[in-house]
Amino acid sequence: MAVSLAEIVARFGGELVGPGNLLIDGTGTLVGARSGQIAFLANPRYTDQLGSTHASAVILGPEVAADCPVAAIVTPQPYLYFARLSGWLYPAPAVTPGVHPTAVVECHVPEGVCVGPLAWIGTDVTLGEGVVIGSHCRIGARSMVGEGSRLHGGATIYPECVVGNRFLGHSGCVIGADGFGFALDEDRRWVKIPQTGRAVIGDDVEVGANTTIDRGALEDTVIGDGVKLDNQIQVGHNVRIGAHTAMAGCVGIAGSARIGARCTVGGGSIILGHLEIADDVHISAGTLVGKSIRSAGTYSGTVPFLEHREWLRNFAHIRRLEAMSERIRALEARLATLENRP
Amino acid sequence: MAVSLAEIVARFGGELVGPGNLLIDGTGTLVGARSGQIAFLANPRYTDQLGSTHASAVILGPEVAADCPVAAIVTPQPYLYFARLSGWLYPAPAVTPGVHPTAVVECHVPEGVCVGPLAWIGTDVTLGEGVVIGSHCRIGARSMVGEGSRLHGGATIYPECVVGNRFLGHSGCVIGADGFGFALDEDRRWVKIPQTGRAVIGDDVEVGANTTIDRGALEDTVIGDGVKLDNQIQVGHNVRIGAHTAMAGCVGIAGSARIGARCTVGGGSIILGHLEIADDVHISAGTLVGKSIRSAGTYSGTVPFLEHREWLRNFAHIRRLEAMSERIRALEARLATLENRP
Amino acid sequence: MAVSLAEIVARFGGELVGPGNLLIDGTGTLVGARSGQIAFLANPRYTDQLGSTHASAVILGPEVAADCPVAAIVTPQPYLYFARLSGWLYPAPAVTPGVHPTAVVECHVPEGVCVGPLAWIGTDVTLGEGVVIGSHCRIGARSMVGEGSRLHGGATIYPECVVGNRFLGHSGCVIGADGFGFALDEDRRWVKIPQTGRAVIGDDVEVGANTTIDRGALEDTVIGDGVKLDNQIQVGHNVRIGAHTAMAGCVGIAGSARIGARCTVGGGSIILGHLEIADDVHISAGTLVGKSIRSAGTYSGTVPFLEHREWLRNFAHIRRLEAMSERIRALEARLATLENRP
Repeated sequence: MAVSLAEIVARFGGELVGPGNLLIDGTGTLVGARSGQIAFLANPRYTDQLGSTHASAVILGPEVAADCPVAAIVTPQPYLYFARLSGWLYPAPAVTPGVHPTAVVECHVPEGVCVGPLAWIGTDVTLGEGVVIGSHCRIGARSMVGEGSRLHGGATIYPECVVGNRFLGHSGCVIGADGFGFALDEDRRWVKIPQTGRAVIGDDVEVGANTTIDRGALEDTVIGDGVKLDNQIQVGHNVRIGAHTAMAGCVGIAGSARIGARCTVGGGSIILGHLEIADDVHISAGTLVGKSIRSAGTYSGTVPFLEHREWLRNFAHIRRLEAMSERIRALEARLATLENRP
Repeated sequence: MAVSLAEIVARFGGELVGPGNLLIDGTGTLVGARSGQIAFLANPRYTDQLGSTHASAVILGPEVAADCPVAAIVTPQPYLYFARLSGWLYPAPAVTPGVHPTAVVECHVPEGVCVGPLAWIGTDVTLGEGVVIGSHCRIGARSMVGEGSRLHGGATIYPECVVGNRFLGHSGCVIGADGFGFALDEDRRWVKIPQTGRAVIGDDVEVGANTTIDRGALEDTVIGDGVKLDNQIQVGHNVRIGAHTAMAGCVGIAGSARIGARCTVGGGSIILGHLEIADDVHISAGTLVGKSIRSAGTYSGTVPFLEHREWLRNFAHIRRLEAMSERIRALEARLATLENRP
Repeated sequence: MAVSLAEIVARFGGELVGPGNLLIDGTGTLVGARSGQIAFLANPRYTDQLGSTHASAVILGPEVAADCPVAAIVTPQPYLYFARLSGWLYPAPAVTPGVHPTAVVECHVPEGVCVGPLAWIGTDVTLGEGVVIGSHCRIGARSMVGEGSRLHGGATIYPECVVGNRFLGHSGCVIGADGFGFALDEDRRWVKIPQTGRAVIGDDVEVGANTTIDRGALEDTVIGDGVKLDNQIQVGHNVRIGAHTAMAGCVGIAGSARIGARCTVGGGSIILGHLEIADDVHISAGTLVGKSIRSAGTYSGTVPFLEHREWLRNFAHIRRLEAMSERIRALEARLATLENRP
């Protein structure tokens, strides 16, 4: 598929600098693009890559437009422009509707739905228009998957769960497994608490590979519209995540945490249970959130690292900070005594 | 299924305050329960939710019984009582025994066992009575799965592993993959060490979604009776976990660690290899356990977090703690000199 | 299979101390081996286990050879010797070539390849000689898997990815899922950026259970030859990992990080995006790498832990390190004033 710069600008806006009939057949980075491709410059740090680019055109901001040696589309938000253009140039691959003969389907499948090889869909599952179920997926009884949703191979939805429209679930994601709920008995053995809630997921949610979202214990686990979860994330039972919040890989969220809308959570962070995080909160990577955050803002607990011998010398003191503080206090008292000497 | 409070008390004990013939058809939270449901109050923090509950009855402790505006079951351990009642009201869904025609089964299947669609079970696998194998599960040759065990869709058991009775394995869990064992050769390439041990799992163990338990290198990896592992946990080769230990999500345990009985490990903690943790040890979330723990107790290495600018100001000092300590030492020496001045 | 010590030494070298015709039928640890097995002593810490071993022979270094009460093979690198011997004694189990009748294969399968039950292989996939595809694996269209590679049950390769020769992928690993790329629009909603790069994996790579390696956004994600990744690792889009680098479980690597050759990364470490790590860098467990590392060496950010009350007393000071530093500075100034008093 090749499109002209004029067509692109007609569809997505922006100011065209260069020939409208120049054809674009793909996207690339400033460094890696070949002739025929369009690149973008969103981070001023990379401005010096403009000079040597082989891209035929570049999407960039007005402040660097003058530096562009090739055709340009000038827009205040080059990265967003690139995202939209790229989504148009590279739509999700078309699939042939129909149920593969090796799939096991125990529910009604609307026309236009595609069920891949060796998938299993249980009884009374509701599938929306245009749903695409990959190979080896399994969907438990009475669940619902909204229109235009797509499950990649090997994704799991447990029974009674609800997934909104335009959901994208990657391989190995698991929606609706039991939350982790046990009571200790008199002999200190764990007695399981049945997890009778559901996992309920809004529209336009993406869930990465091997990410797990547990069903609720008594209430539901609820993921808001537009939430994006990277790979290997764990969402505990009864958690609520507000709309348009995004989390990077390896995040863990313990049960009953309530996370606001439009938050971002950096990779490897852990959010403890039964706490609340306000809207518009940004958590840096590797942060352990152990208490509620009531105000929008950025919060960090990321620990610095050091060359190993420096680490040995410095980190051991973390275990003696109280003593260090006491020594300072003692010094202050002794010094005051001295200062008050006549 | 509706049961009377009298039936409940007859079965599980406790002191009934209210009409024995009141019918209960489900469980709920104090806030979310509707009429006909029974809730519980285990944490005194939520006592003020009693006043407005729509639950028909509440399980609670004697110290708050007087505050309950509806029927009550009074018991010293409301949460445990609730767990047992809930397990009775919500048993695991019944399954129809038999092997689904799309399953591939190369071993003997006892009567009463259920093998779901598209599952694969290898040669010489031993399945106990009442085992339920979900869709797309795979069980390698010569493994054993004890009676009453249940594997959710897409669970994996590698060859030669042993799983006890009443095991519950969630989707995507992997039992018995190779441990991570390599030797460096003269050219600094890794030479794989065959992992010839097994993963051996006791009775009444639950393993969460996408949790992985490696097989042993030379000896076995051994998980004790009653152990409960949440989602996304990694258990390395040769690890031993004592009976009734529970671990929250995203925990990583390196090879050959020996963990005692009745321990708890908070989410995201990492336990390094070749160390020992005593019985009855509790590890806080986000803790890195880098050396053995010889005594029961609670241990923590959880790092606090701060608003980002506060973090910038404070955490950078971690890299200079040795210098800070030196400055205190120097101050102490100088101050002593001053103090000794005549 | 039983082999004589003479055969072993003829094949792998080393100095034999003892009878060449002694037969060995397996490997074990010094403590666990029974008669007929061969053990090894690589760590001098375990030298005192030599005296009571039931192994028939031990692989060990020259410095402890005199202490060995049974037959010995003396070599400067006992662990490497053991790895090689063990690989010979315990080869990967032989498989019967051919495509299982329940597999769905839409590409050409060369003779000698084994495709397990219920696997799915898409169109135009290229499989090398001797490839073994386990049950329930899925391989997307146009991908390539090099000769001698082996995918355990339930592994996933997305379309257009490239996997080298002798690859070993464990159950639940996912190669080539979408990277995590979104732009914020004017309404603070996330617009997906199609991930048009591939995941390209070299020769002799091992990928653990439930590990995920994302495809690139515009360029490829590239894993070098001989890289070994443990379980539950997340590798973001566009990451490059140099040859013979090894990473322990639960590591997370954010997008576009460039990691050198022959590195090791300890369990649970997080490497942030868009940074570079030199060759021969070793990262301790639980370290967050937040900036580039330009020189070979060992780097750590592992936080110590404490008994809980000690933790309470000490870790809270991390939030007040700036104030502590200020108090020291103030003391230094006041002390200097005092010292300068006549």
